[in-house]
Amino acid sequence: MFASDNTAPAHPKILEAMVAANAGIAPSYGADAWTLRAEAMLREIFERDCAVLFVPTGTAANALSLAALTPPWGAIISHRDAHIVWDEAGAPEFYTGGARVITIDGPSGKLLPATLDAEASRYSRKWVHGLQPFAVSISQATEFGGSYRPGEIAALSAVCRSHGLKLHMDGARFATAIAHTGASPAESSWKSGVDVLSFGATKNGALACEAILCFDESAAQALPHLRKRAGQLLSKHRYIAAQMVGYLEDGLWMTLAAQANAQAAALAEVFGARTIHAVEANEVFVRLAPAEAAALRAAGAAFHPSAPDGEGAYRFVPSWATTDEEVETVRRALSAA
Amino acid sequence: MFASDNTAPAHPKILEAMVAANAGIAPSYGADAWTLRAEAMLREIFERDCAVLFVPTGTAANALSLAALTPPWGAIISHRDAHIVWDEAGAPEFYTGGARVITIDGPSGKLLPATLDAEASRYSRKWVHGLQPFAVSISQATEFGGSYRPGEIAALSAVCRSHGLKLHMDGARFATAIAHTGASPAESSWKSGVDVLSFGATKNGALACEAILCFDESAAQALPHLRKRAGQLLSKHRYIAAQMVGYLEDGLWMTLAAQANAQAAALAEVFGARTIHAVEANEVFVRLAPAEAAALRAAGAAFHPSAPDGEGAYRFVPSWATTDEEVETVRRALSAA
Amino acid sequence: MFASDNTAPAHPKILEAMVAANAGIAPSYGADAWTLRAEAMLREIFERDCAVLFVPTGTAANALSLAALTPPWGAIISHRDAHIVWDEAGAPEFYTGGARVITIDGPSGKLLPATLDAEASRYSRKWVHGLQPFAVSISQATEFGGSYRPGEIAALSAVCRSHGLKLHMDGARFATAIAHTGASPAESSWKSGVDVLSFGATKNGALACEAILCFDESAAQALPHLRKRAGQLLSKHRYIAAQMVGYLEDGLWMTLAAQANAQAAALAEVFGARTIHAVEANEVFVRLAPAEAAALRAAGAAFHPSAPDGEGAYRFVPSWATTDEEVETVRRALSAA
Amino acid sequence: MFASDNTAPAHPKILEAMVAANAGIAPSYGADAWTLRAEAMLREIFERDCAVLFVPTGTAANALSLAALTPPWGAIISHRDAHIVWDEAGAPEFYTGGARVITIDGPSGKLLPATLDAEASRYSRKWVHGLQPFAVSISQATEFGGSYRPGEIAALSAVCRSHGLKLHMDGARFATAIAHTGASPAESSWKSGVDVLSFGATKNGALACEAILCFDESAAQALPHLRKRAGQLLSKHRYIAAQMVGYLEDGLWMTLAAQANAQAAALAEVFGARTIHAVEANEVFVRLAPAEAAALRAAGAAFHPSAPDGEGAYRFVPSWATTDEEVETVRRALSAA
Repeated sequence: MFASDNTAPAHPKILEAMVAANAGIAPSYGADAWTLRAEAMLREIFERDCAVLFVPTGTAANALSLAALTPPWGAIISHRDAHIVWDEAGAPEFYTGGARVITIDGPSGKLLPATLDAEASRYSRKWVHGLQPFAVSISQATEFGGSYRPGEIAALSAVCRSHGLKLHMDGARFATAIAHTGASPAESSWKSGVDVLSFGATKNGALACEAILCFDESAAQALPHLRKRAGQLLSKHRYIAAQMVGYLEDGLWMTLAAQANAQAAALAEVFGARTIHAVEANEVFVRLAPAEAAALRAAGAAFHPSAPDGEGAYRFVPSWATTDEEVETVRRALSAA
Repeated sequence: MFASDNTAPAHPKILEAMVAANAGIAPSYGADAWTLRAEAMLREIFERDCAVLFVPTGTAANALSLAALTPPWGAIISHRDAHIVWDEAGAPEFYTGGARVITIDGPSGKLLPATLDAEASRYSRKWVHGLQPFAVSISQATEFGGSYRPGEIAALSAVCRSHGLKLHMDGARFATAIAHTGASPAESSWKSGVDVLSFGATKNGALACEAILCFDESAAQALPHLRKRAGQLLSKHRYIAAQMVGYLEDGLWMTLAAQANAQAAALAEVFGARTIHAVEANEVFVRLAPAEAAALRAAGAAFHPSAPDGEGAYRFVPSWATTDEEVETVRRALSAA
Repeated sequence: MFASDNTAPAHPKILEAMVAANAGIAPSYGADAWTLRAEAMLREIFERDCAVLFVPTGTAANALSLAALTPPWGAIISHRDAHIVWDEAGAPEFYTGGARVITIDGPSGKLLPATLDAEASRYSRKWVHGLQPFAVSISQATEFGGSYRPGEIAALSAVCRSHGLKLHMDGARFATAIAHTGASPAESSWKSGVDVLSFGATKNGALACEAILCFDESAAQALPHLRKRAGQLLSKHRYIAAQMVGYLEDGLWMTLAAQANAQAAALAEVFGARTIHAVEANEVFVRLAPAEAAALRAAGAAFHPSAPDGEGAYRFVPSWATTDEEVETVRRALSAA
Repeated sequence: MFASDNTAPAHPKILEAMVAANAGIAPSYGADAWTLRAEAMLREIFERDCAVLFVPTGTAANALSLAALTPPWGAIISHRDAHIVWDEAGAPEFYTGGARVITIDGPSGKLLPATLDAEASRYSRKWVHGLQPFAVSISQATEFGGSYRPGEIAALSAVCRSHGLKLHMDGARFATAIAHTGASPAESSWKSGVDVLSFGATKNGALACEAILCFDESAAQALPHLRKRAGQLLSKHRYIAAQMVGYLEDGLWMTLAAQANAQAAALAEVFGARTIHAVEANEVFVRLAPAEAAALRAAGAAFHPSAPDGEGAYRFVPSWATTDEEVETVRRALSAA
């Protein structure tokens, strides 16, 4: 428990949707009714038409998005601790054909407009010897549990526009982020200037389902070909689409996000002053004494070090499936330590 | 019906295994019990230790296998009508970093040792201006429903060895192929010299599950990194592993393959002299008069042209879920035409 | 002698231009006066403004041109015996990031409009499973010594336009080709619809100098970055530019091409009925009896088999430096055989 | 003057060697006598057999070297201000097929063993989510004019070995570096653990000539294919080989390096306390008051800012062709300022 939200099971409603989809023959490769329905639901939730592509992993969603925005000879600016930098084994480089990820720093995993502007200003499309940034990638929620408000996204987007850069959002935890900010999906993405969004469902209750929502016309042309060429187009496509239908139906996704956030808040309350980043989604970062860490592990908690935060820092990730009892276990172990 | 085996639903037992896996927390990225079990089952069925990697698409399985065998400056020899040539949108080129697929001809989608030897002899590792073949890829069953017997595979493998080439088998329909030949999984793969096998389950009853079985040590080292970098490592890995468990348990996979083959045989019997390739798995190729094709479509049959076979040639692909009634529908429509 | 035009030395005037450029300090990377002059000369000769980039090899010129026209997920259609297919070790695949070269046949290395149209018609931008052609590449002169007239190029270009394809011309032997056809450089390139031209100088008297002439605005934007990233931008750029100045000055390039063609014609006359392709530039293809080939080799002639032409077929390539005496040697050896 | 050593002309002896090579027919692609001679000279100078490949640019030499040492899914560790990071437009990423360059800091452009060890320790071949370093690249001389002594190289190499990493040296200014340290070519490369060396000649008097010296057997197998595929194999190869012969003959290369270093030392003496890095080759870094910079420019000096050194920092690069008068001009302008 707490090691990551991807150790949680799938929500029963989502599995039920898959079982419901398992009836008779259906067209393959996304021409089925479940896919059409899932696409329509996303377009309604995001309040506009856009290209929608389902893929089974967040790494694929991110890498495809970046490949659609950046030529092989381009570069992508992101936070130095971003998932695309540390946890995707070079997938952005692979999918883009060798573009470079340039990293900058920022508080709690967030990019700041001024820092982004300063970095982007170091490059020029006329300088053939150097890198050519084409895109910026931000994480929602960030790798340290921070969430961008629409105004913050819009400010970054404005910097992007001024430098001719496109804006990608890694929304592996988009649901818990906006459950925290209270902003609408549209306000948290295209209305604030996001060009392509990786919209995650897996960490929040699905089995293996992420959507790429592409609001940029030129990128939208390339994406279906990029996806197929990457072996990311599922043949029995109804089952990934059904997951998304189950995930979105009756607002399940926001319900699950709220649950995860509530447990994160409860956990933060338990950790008190040990907490080292504002808890704005479903991740909690704390600094623990060795004895505390040991006590927690002994009590059954699982958690990874948060390397960028230095010695004794750890990450706890409650999910939709986290129980009050699990949080209580932490409380008890900590008190005893 | 008949358009492709990937329009069929998943077998209930496989969905049940997924539902069974949906209990509590499980380690992500393949460290779970279901993965260990699926791997062990495959090693037992194939009668040897080997690297096993699960991926959600056949294109990914093939492209990763080829990338593990071929450097970016290499080439792969395959049949000119192979799936990797026509139906994967350049995935082999993408995953290998730009290797070329060289194509040769052969009856019913099969490579012949003499043809392979002649082609391989055109290249030399010392000639820097030309291509450098490193691998050969064959399909089991072939794109025209042919199945390789162990002796045929061994003969091709011998040619490969003599030219320093590795042998990949695209086993998207491995199950129906060996259900036809009667040879064991081991005899149909590594015992006959296959270095890497794409072992398909999706077309034969799974939702989205293929395994790469790697019998080559050097390729096995690279594969986990290649898979992750390609965004093909599922985070909630238990669900893909559970599919494989359900697929293999109690020999379900061979039962399903036998069912599909039986319907293919029945269909071939219905088509009679219209059949244009030997039916050695679950694909049936026929030449139809325009009126016959129209009558079949009117009766609800779906089928695609088989372009390489010329005007009026079509492919029918029964699956494990094909019913006697569906075959009967074809019979009636054909009689009436 | 005759093995290839790249075994010939450089023309003294071209070396002299390099020596003349070797005075004092000069800006690096193409900001020097020699580069400006060479560019201006090419624009005048080609009668229009265009992007000009110098690179030291023909393979680089071709691969960069193709990479500027084709995305990694695209394909290029060319003749099955083209230099980009057989003699560049996969450079098109490397530079494009994995695009595929699709090959078709045609007489004496030429593409025919009807064949090109038929091939291009096999693909659709809407079919994500298949290849996506973006460019066509033709060779001028062809790999069998044929030369395209402007009308022939325009006819191919019309097919390209109708399928949304760009047209690249591998002009490694552009000079000898147009010396034969008598058409102007402009008529033989952009006026007939060529989008990017590899304009060769090396085979016709330079040391290591090819120019990419890009008539397509979008491709022109990418090319400087692609060139630098490929390590193809020379730092002491004046020396490659000086070669081009020396090559073009006083029409030296056309003088040299005429010389090479004259020797090819003389050689063809010597070979008589043994000649197997029309001699439309500086390459001569012949079929020789084993005794004849042996006699020629004994006399000092060097020549390679022309594999696509079958047993006993050979290629002779006179250059600007070929002497009457060398042709005479062939005549004598042949008579004696 | 001083902008860069690549604004200098070629040394007359090197041009003379090219002119001498311009006689009659010669085999292409490196089978000529000049190439054999240049290779033999390098092997003698470096006191061992090794693979030698000539390429026209330093970027190509570096990128090919790195591609031979690192798979597409690997990473390369280098100094954060390295040429491969800032001045090659992503060539390492392109040539490796998408490997990442990881950067660390160090004084005056040098890597320190402890820093390298710490960085290398952050990665594990067993952690599929993260990067997989395969190589380390150091610059000799560094981008700030520092030179590695054999002991320093050996210490870095020991760290490399302990982590299973190969060591590449970007020796674009190898000559001036060892002219400063006094160590032999062998001691400065393979005897201290360098696996592949980019041995530059262009900046030190050649026109366009760099050699890759590969001491690693496995990398040596791939390099000829990588070079050809990259369009970096010159057809009239004698001219690049002749440059190397002229460069090495009678120790010209060390004479030229000594000249450049002497002028750098003289310049450093002129700049006095303004100098901000130890001058250990032919680069001089200084901090100037705006008035001083203006005065120098007015006097005809050309120089670029040294961005990593902050405001007012500039780089001066004397070459073999720098005259006493040019240094004197700087002295006068500085005194007057």
